[in-house]
Amino acid sequence: MHAYRSHTCADLNKSHVGETVRLSGWVHRVRDHGGILFIDLRDHYGITQVLADPDSPAFADVEKVRSEWCIRIDGVVKARDESLVNAKIPTGEVEVFVRELEVLGQAEELPLMVFGDQDYPEETRLRYRYLDLRRESMQANMTLRSDVVASIRRRMWDKGFREFQTPIITASSPEGARDFLVPSRLHPGKFYALPQAPQIFKQLIMVSGFDRYFQIAPCFRDEDPRADRSPTDFYQLDLEMSFVQQQDVFDTVQPVIAGIFEEFGGGRKVDTDWPQISYADAALWYGTDKPDLRNPIRMQDVSEHFRGSGFAIFAKLLEQDGTEIRAIPAPTGGSRKFCDRMNAFAQKEGLPGMGYIFWRETDGQTEAAGPLAKNIGPERTDAIRQQLGLGVGDAAFFLGGKPSAFQTVAGKARTVIGDELGLTDKDRFAFCWIVDFPMYEQDAETGAIDFEHNPFSMPQGGIEALEGDPLKVRGYQYDLACNGYELVSGAIRNHRLDIMFKAFALAGYAEDEVRKRFPSLVNAFRYGPPPHGGCAAGIDRIVMLLADELNIREVIMFPMNQRAEDLMMGAPSEPSNDQLRDLSLRVIPQE
Amino acid sequence: MHAYRSHTCADLNKSHVGETVRLSGWVHRVRDHGGILFIDLRDHYGITQVLADPDSPAFADVEKVRSEWCIRIDGVVKARDESLVNAKIPTGEVEVFVRELEVLGQAEELPLMVFGDQDYPEETRLRYRYLDLRRESMQANMTLRSDVVASIRRRMWDKGFREFQTPIITASSPEGARDFLVPSRLHPGKFYALPQAPQIFKQLIMVSGFDRYFQIAPCFRDEDPRADRSPTDFYQLDLEMSFVQQQDVFDTVQPVIAGIFEEFGGGRKVDTDWPQISYADAALWYGTDKPDLRNPIRMQDVSEHFRGSGFAIFAKLLEQDGTEIRAIPAPTGGSRKFCDRMNAFAQKEGLPGMGYIFWRETDGQTEAAGPLAKNIGPERTDAIRQQLGLGVGDAAFFLGGKPSAFQTVAGKARTVIGDELGLTDKDRFAFCWIVDFPMYEQDAETGAIDFEHNPFSMPQGGIEALEGDPLKVRGYQYDLACNGYELVSGAIRNHRLDIMFKAFALAGYAEDEVRKRFPSLVNAFRYGPPPHGGCAAGIDRIVMLLADELNIREVIMFPMNQRAEDLMMGAPSEPSNDQLRDLSLRVIPQE
Repeated sequence: MHAYRSHTCADLNKSHVGETVRLSGWVHRVRDHGGILFIDLRDHYGITQVLADPDSPAFADVEKVRSEWCIRIDGVVKARDESLVNAKIPTGEVEVFVRELEVLGQAEELPLMVFGDQDYPEETRLRYRYLDLRRESMQANMTLRSDVVASIRRRMWDKGFREFQTPIITASSPEGARDFLVPSRLHPGKFYALPQAPQIFKQLIMVSGFDRYFQIAPCFRDEDPRADRSPTDFYQLDLEMSFVQQQDVFDTVQPVIAGIFEEFGGGRKVDTDWPQISYADAALWYGTDKPDLRNPIRMQDVSEHFRGSGFAIFAKLLEQDGTEIRAIPAPTGGSRKFCDRMNAFAQKEGLPGMGYIFWRETDGQTEAAGPLAKNIGPERTDAIRQQLGLGVGDAAFFLGGKPSAFQTVAGKARTVIGDELGLTDKDRFAFCWIVDFPMYEQDAETGAIDFEHNPFSMPQGGIEALEGDPLKVRGYQYDLACNGYELVSGAIRNHRLDIMFKAFALAGYAEDEVRKRFPSLVNAFRYGPPPHGGCAAGIDRIVMLLADELNIREVIMFPMNQRAEDLMMGAPSEPSNDQLRDLSLRVIPQE
Repeated sequence: MHAYRSHTCADLNKSHVGETVRLSGWVHRVRDHGGILFIDLRDHYGITQVLADPDSPAFADVEKVRSEWCIRIDGVVKARDESLVNAKIPTGEVEVFVRELEVLGQAEELPLMVFGDQDYPEETRLRYRYLDLRRESMQANMTLRSDVVASIRRRMWDKGFREFQTPIITASSPEGARDFLVPSRLHPGKFYALPQAPQIFKQLIMVSGFDRYFQIAPCFRDEDPRADRSPTDFYQLDLEMSFVQQQDVFDTVQPVIAGIFEEFGGGRKVDTDWPQISYADAALWYGTDKPDLRNPIRMQDVSEHFRGSGFAIFAKLLEQDGTEIRAIPAPTGGSRKFCDRMNAFAQKEGLPGMGYIFWRETDGQTEAAGPLAKNIGPERTDAIRQQLGLGVGDAAFFLGGKPSAFQTVAGKARTVIGDELGLTDKDRFAFCWIVDFPMYEQDAETGAIDFEHNPFSMPQGGIEALEGDPLKVRGYQYDLACNGYELVSGAIRNHRLDIMFKAFALAGYAEDEVRKRFPSLVNAFRYGPPPHGGCAAGIDRIVMLLADELNIREVIMFPMNQRAEDLMMGAPSEPSNDQLRDLSLRVIPQE
């Protein structure tokens, strides 16, 4: 017989009754039922009930074991009484009568119980991660994560993509976030950097002629900690294709992502219609570029109804350039109590409040209520109602000013309204592509033009488009949003050096500067670059959505805490003097 | 029609004749055959011949293109004349008559030709890696590497293993090589380290109850450059299993590795018998712990035949403790010329020389020739011949002294002899497990005892074995050798704290020191650690063997050069003052 097990703790059933078996695992819990000792023996695969009575030669040994001891037992499989069958576990029909017990690994008193649902402070969970990970929910989350990544790989291979690993110790790439640096011992005073993403490498892979690349890629950003992101590294499904347009990337990605959500979504509905919404429309309709389409509410511009109306605040606002009145329709929200609560929400978010109208039935007639309705009169009120498609029992909220000032709060209000009114179907994954991102943005204070998003994207309309107003240039740049989160971000790349230099010039970067900052890409594009594009999908985020977790640390095996420390491993730590000398570095003392 | 292609450059054949098609790719080469221009158009998938004659509306455009321009063509598929069919490529039956040509990406004059077999200095190849990678051999190597890794993953999944990613920014682990350090911005003066291997993490994963883990894991060692290793990072198939003994690991790994070599070995024979050879026997028989078993030569101890013999050098040597005479049999090597060449080889390697005997037929009799034979006389000579199983036409070489002094050269001589005599079957992969590694070694000068290999391995015989002579303790520690290379290294781990502290004490480490150096593992083992073991296989090495390459840079997409620089990316580079200030670091000026 094998030294440790003839079966796993999930294997045994009635068909094994009478067999002598060997199991290894952890003591999940011990119960004493009138002198008979029951152990729930747990391994990665399941739980089997084992027992010993005082007649058993192993009784004395069984008496000694405590929670989370790792043990091996030999014993005989017995059927349980009908009344004692546990239908919840696959081994619930049987139990194993212990003949021999070997302690493989003792456990001291536990700082964290594996059995049960007790909550522990995150610091405790991370310091004793190896115990925390034994808990059922963490075993399930890690298994899910591993299976999701495996399934992504299978799906990408099936689509003719190959995975290539790109360097992890590489060059500093001055884009976006802060790099992690790695001092070079062989080149004193010089540093490598960990890649923020394999962006440049994957483009070079396309220039190298590989056509379809993907990678489950570790990415490194030295960012200030936040609850929903890892302060050090995170993983992306990174992909790139040559000889493609935007729609080709969508057609490639949709079945992979949809397939993953169908496979691991636990039966939640996965939308098959993934609308393409322009960045501008998303801002107008949802107040965000990562809308939650499970929420059916779509905001509308209702400025016309307020222009010159009796509601002086809005009427006056509209006299200024660039202002707008926007409505958030709230079907079934037609009560003063609800409207007041939403108004209070807006105030909490820093706005003066949200005007509202709600519709009720009075004497068989549809009547608009609320202060706004009185101010603008029944005709305008009804025109609004008709535009928004509302009726008795519904409400609408109104925000006015420059969209950039209220848009974010409007988006949040839309979410709260959808949630509170039960309009948002929680058991569903709703996707949309956000397209036509602006290439540039203008700094409100300095008026300077800079890239809004990714400087390597191809501007729509090519070099001609760059001759006009930069703020009107849109890029072949896109995001995929799901349930209010950004899952994917990508672009068709700018592979033409002439367009690239022009695009950077608009943002104030001279050609020399571009050559200096991105030498590899600029050089590579001198030698027959193909048109190419791709995207990156956040693995951690996908797993969080599937596992229904809000904290990224629930889906990472050994995460850092929010101070970017690993308490279990003791990282970061002070280097030895020898190490610093090897690296020609000195630490500047802190004041 | 798609903007860039209706088919790839490998798709077209006779069945497409008459169709209008669209292809995109690179101009592999252009030929002018009496006014008709032929382009070999290449993409990742293949090559298609396209052509234009002066009647073609695209002729003027075709005239302009040069090597490695990226172009799109529209054209009509035509059958080639029987006499012009190229059977070597799948598209060899057809050609495409160009109607329209679009330049997608021009190329300047090339620093490196893609077409043809011209050699370039490695610095050129690495600086223009995106051109180098377009060459057929590099496309093949990268494709092979990707396919090997994909196949490993499939095989591991099929065996019930799950892949888990372990942290890349983590703690310094004082084992073996030098760490790459990463300064922490949030914790001034403290550093993270990149993992030399996920050794500690995978053991923690076992303590966490996951049973079967693997990872295609990046490993980082700040080592001085060498031709056959990457100076920064490399990849391992890292795996670990709970509740296993050594043989279980072998039974798991063998089908995976053998399967990979069968799948990608290009028809070379893959041995199915993988002998287990003790470290001591490997040293005796092959002079190395990574023997090449394609070479049938096995060395033998022939001390008895020289003790008290007329060959005074050996006879005297044997009077000292720990000395030995070892024979390298050389079947078919029985000529003075060959023997003298091998003797010269040994001298070049720093030894005084190798004695030899060879056997020839004289007057129908087997006669031993060479100076040694004369010195020890026919009786001893024949006893040696019989022990080695040699006869007329064969030879044997002899080395004497302390094995540690001559063993390495003996191993090399065995290799050279096998190669020169054509005994080594090059078209074959021969594997063996090397087992029973000693746990400890003694420093020749100080006499101090230290770990020979991995301090985390379980000593054979448990704690009792540690009571005796440490130099006699063997570990459950093993390597897999293939064709003279170490492919895999692993161990059954020491999961018992009492045995671990005892094992470290023998090497001079106090318990406190062990707790301090390996806090995570020592702490984890306090809470019911399971018995576990595993191994790691070098991905780069496996791909090198399969691709028949001797330089690791031939199987890595973007490797560093031997000075640990990436000339294409410009790494490492000088940090900005802001970056250094953020990290609280100052560079010590070099003298």
